[in-house]
Amino acid sequence: MTPVGGAMEPTVEPASPERNVMLVVEYDGTCYHGFQLQAADVPTVQGELERGLRQVTGIVTRVAGAGRTDRGVHAAGQVVSFRTRSALEAAVLQRALNAVLPADIAVLAAAELPPDFHARFSARSREYRYTILNRPVRTALERQLTYHVATPLDVAAMAEAARQLVGEHDFVSFASAGEKVASTVRRVLAADCRREGVKIYVDIAANAFLPHMVRNIVGTLLPVGTGRLDLPGFQEIFGARQRRQAGPTAPARGLCLMRVNY
Amino acid sequence: MTPVGGAMEPTVEPASPERNVMLVVEYDGTCYHGFQLQAADVPTVQGELERGLRQVTGIVTRVAGAGRTDRGVHAAGQVVSFRTRSALEAAVLQRALNAVLPADIAVLAAAELPPDFHARFSARSREYRYTILNRPVRTALERQLTYHVATPLDVAAMAEAARQLVGEHDFVSFASAGEKVASTVRRVLAADCRREGVKIYVDIAANAFLPHMVRNIVGTLLPVGTGRLDLPGFQEIFGARQRRQAGPTAPARGLCLMRVNY
Repeated sequence: MTPVGGAMEPTVEPASPERNVMLVVEYDGTCYHGFQLQAADVPTVQGELERGLRQVTGIVTRVAGAGRTDRGVHAAGQVVSFRTRSALEAAVLQRALNAVLPADIAVLAAAELPPDFHARFSARSREYRYTILNRPVRTALERQLTYHVATPLDVAAMAEAARQLVGEHDFVSFASAGEKVASTVRRVLAADCRREGVKIYVDIAANAFLPHMVRNIVGTLLPVGTGRLDLPGFQEIFGARQRRQAGPTAPARGLCLMRVNY
Repeated sequence: MTPVGGAMEPTVEPASPERNVMLVVEYDGTCYHGFQLQAADVPTVQGELERGLRQVTGIVTRVAGAGRTDRGVHAAGQVVSFRTRSALEAAVLQRALNAVLPADIAVLAAAELPPDFHARFSARSREYRYTILNRPVRTALERQLTYHVATPLDVAAMAEAARQLVGEHDFVSFASAGEKVASTVRRVLAADCRREGVKIYVDIAANAFLPHMVRNIVGTLLPVGTGRLDLPGFQEIFGARQRRQAGPTAPARGLCLMRVNY
């Protein structure tokens, strides 16, 4: 006798085992409303990656990103991970994605990782760079990747202020005014500011960042650079734990997620 | 007695004396159909500069450029000159132009020069740079300013071939197939190729260039870099004085007019 329902069940292809894939992604954020998926008609990096994966694997796939970059923010080393039953090897996936993704998104690396790896939850720290173009005249060639400041900036003073941020602190002074987060305490591992020709790099590494944190820090380092704010003034703002004392949010186009560490 | 017609003539404001102004201009050529003015609805760098000058001075002005860059080609140091009866000082003109020009064009410097200076006819030499991004994966962040070549390139071999170009030669092998020029002899002052990380720079200076000359040279240096063409083969193409033997024209986006010397 045939087991109940047995003969009626359709033959199912044995699915490929589920695998966990990690991608390192570079993107020019100029035309995107940030990394994170939004409404279907709003261009996002996550949306493009998921569309690309569906096109390449034929499977609807949800990806997780290590850093939720804002509208207009770039990445040189964003990390995403996703689970897939696609049989395509990581290197094949990478090549196929680069063939179908828009020109302003590129997959720099791909690897299969153990099932417990997660781009966001496994990340130990993130490194962001903010690039200021410090010369009298604005730039045409690098306008999308730098923020132009005409006033000469005192980089040594900015670096000294930046170094005050290192350590575990409450960063609520540099948090986004609108958004609620459970805790505003973060651990900054390194913070520096240096000049290379007409460019000034503000490099900050932390276990995690509050929304707009780097751009708010840069917005408060700039008056230190012009001399309108001194080091005690910067420390006072940092210690005041009130968002409205800090400087304005620096523009998104100068910011880039450089690297995620695991 | 009043001289004939004298009393009837309208009072004319004494016009400012005609002055000769030079600008150094940086532009991202991605969205322009080259430097040179074309039909009114075709975006060109010259068209934008002339529109900006009219807006700033109120006077219709024609500008001359030192190098006629093609569609999609960039400039870090294009030089233009024009005659104007505007009373605005060069530094004021520069600031006003930077306020009205599109974000992808910037005036880096401005100066009043003696009347015999002409951006094109006074130029003694031009320097172009072609930038190749040489790594397996394409770039998102620098896609508009570099040409991506995935195959590893032998830069030493390319540099050796490039150096064969130095001197006064007939460059018809690297001339644009379609365009007629009076003479195809040019004097190359320097030609080199070097690697910096994943970027390869092809730098060529010459008294003047034929249309597409740098891009056709790069298109023939690339097979030298991949090993498909050896040095004698490159010299044979150069000496053959026939356009059809050379490699294809390299894409415009890698090319930048760096500097004009007077």
